[in-house]
Amino acid sequence: MTIARRVHLAARPFGLPDTSTWEVRDTELAEPGDGEVLVRVTHLSLDPAMRGWLNDVRSYVPPVGIGEVMRAFGAAVVVESRDPAFSPGDAVAGILGVTDHAVVRGDQLTPIDLDVAPATTWLGALGMPGMTAWFGLFDVAKAQPGDTVVVSGAAGAVGSVVGQLAKAHGCRVIGIAGGAEKCAWLTDELGFDAAIDYREGPVHRALRAVAPDGVDVYFDNVGGEMLDSVLRTLRLRARIAICGAISTYNATEPPPGPAHYMSLLVNRASMAGFLVFDFEDRYPEAVADISARIADGSLVAREHVVDGGVDAFADALLMLFSGANTGKLVLAV
Amino acid sequence: MTIARRVHLAARPFGLPDTSTWEVRDTELAEPGDGEVLVRVTHLSLDPAMRGWLNDVRSYVPPVGIGEVMRAFGAAVVVESRDPAFSPGDAVAGILGVTDHAVVRGDQLTPIDLDVAPATTWLGALGMPGMTAWFGLFDVAKAQPGDTVVVSGAAGAVGSVVGQLAKAHGCRVIGIAGGAEKCAWLTDELGFDAAIDYREGPVHRALRAVAPDGVDVYFDNVGGEMLDSVLRTLRLRARIAICGAISTYNATEPPPGPAHYMSLLVNRASMAGFLVFDFEDRYPEAVADISARIADGSLVAREHVVDGGVDAFADALLMLFSGANTGKLVLAV
Repeated sequence: MTIARRVHLAARPFGLPDTSTWEVRDTELAEPGDGEVLVRVTHLSLDPAMRGWLNDVRSYVPPVGIGEVMRAFGAAVVVESRDPAFSPGDAVAGILGVTDHAVVRGDQLTPIDLDVAPATTWLGALGMPGMTAWFGLFDVAKAQPGDTVVVSGAAGAVGSVVGQLAKAHGCRVIGIAGGAEKCAWLTDELGFDAAIDYREGPVHRALRAVAPDGVDVYFDNVGGEMLDSVLRTLRLRARIAICGAISTYNATEPPPGPAHYMSLLVNRASMAGFLVFDFEDRYPEAVADISARIADGSLVAREHVVDGGVDAFADALLMLFSGANTGKLVLAV
Repeated sequence: MTIARRVHLAARPFGLPDTSTWEVRDTELAEPGDGEVLVRVTHLSLDPAMRGWLNDVRSYVPPVGIGEVMRAFGAAVVVESRDPAFSPGDAVAGILGVTDHAVVRGDQLTPIDLDVAPATTWLGALGMPGMTAWFGLFDVAKAQPGDTVVVSGAAGAVGSVVGQLAKAHGCRVIGIAGGAEKCAWLTDELGFDAAIDYREGPVHRALRAVAPDGVDVYFDNVGGEMLDSVLRTLRLRARIAICGAISTYNATEPPPGPAHYMSLLVNRASMAGFLVFDFEDRYPEAVADISARIADGSLVAREHVVDGGVDAFADALLMLFSGANTGKLVLAV
């Protein structure tokens, strides 16, 4: 008999989630049935997209229902398996929910190799964020050697990988992040050509100073004003990949749109949204590339690990929106 | 000795151009030099883009300078030629300026065949607007048979051609225009599947009614609120071609951006700006296609011709912004 400690959605938040949003409950799990696996969760991924899953709107996945366990990616160890593909002790990843134990279908789990990288990295540079960076940069934004690439949320899970991949690809890379410490990390540790602290002043002015010829690729994780600022600095035939808009996810009134979108016309530029799930068939290609870079030390995979288990979930999630994390934010369970 | 009556830019307008914007002056033209041609202008094209040329901002062409003759496309007859490619009596088109006579370099002129269509049509369906429709629809928005195509400014020079080309290509076509009369013209005369009068209520609601499965292609001539409305109705992998934003050209404060741009992400959709001039090498391909359709009666090329010569230019231009024209607005000189 396994008791799972799980975080349920108690009420839809208006603005930032708070204590009324969540309810932590202990629930006895059913024994795994045929094809199912009981896992012990070791790490949970905290993602900006989680905020979107709380809204009762049509989107690319259904919203989390009131009373349901909060949706989350996680890494886990198999405890008991009724799927021949898995044995106790195996390390796996998948959509497990915010819980310390889960019973999931084996076909929903992916084995992860802890000899290649620790579980936390399988939630970061080798997980969804790394895949998002790779396909967004190469397939959506079509970054080419010589391009000036700008990425916002540059010290985050996705942005830090985008910048390093672009740099390795022969691009000139400018990161936008909040605070001097993050900016120093980008240029000193990750090899970005420049970093802009958006708290220090208008981003378009800072961009014009470091990229006077304009921007070829913008990988947008932040949205809002930042997208509007970068639109003002586009170069001919620039490509914008819309990955997210963390600055707007907790807005309590409709955030303004990018007023300078007509820069797309003047510069014959384009802006495309994407979802990493559409590239699922090709994940192995990106995992192979990124893991090789981690192995030879040319790509820094950094995770910001918060302790405290599922009880710490509510507070840890808020760190994403205050910009408290550097690198991939992970909750140790 | 030729006296040209020309319209000069007297002052940059703030908002709608008015009498202080223009000055009409008679000027003696120099004799054409080697390679130059003297033409008598018969028709001038009135284009929404003209408003943009009046602003002192970096764009795809330099702004018209204060005191300069207003830039305009036009159709003309050759009076005297020092370019062996042209003879007196030849019909030509090109950037002639708002004038009744002009001396231009022969290599800046294109011969037009008045047996194929009248001069007014060479400024409309067979001119820039037609080229814009053709390349925007097929090359930028990549319309495919079966697509639901929405076009705004649908009763205008570009929109009316976009809709007819899309229909002939096997698309389902919805036009957005202002007023019942224009809407009736779109469905009854041009064969659009549906027309939405944007003055009658929120466009996204009307669109959901006529296109409950959503929009595959949006060809945007209007911008502003209309773009934002259509963003709310996109289908998976929709393509938006940004051709213009006539609703914002006379704005006296920065118009809001499209707040629903994150629909691009949810729907993995894209939005691309374009300029017809980039397709110049391929104009003959589009001219051949459109002129064949005009010849066999399957494409209606309609021009709204205003009399009064260059002195009527100032008032005629405003008709574009009040939506007074149906089809291509042309000034007879």
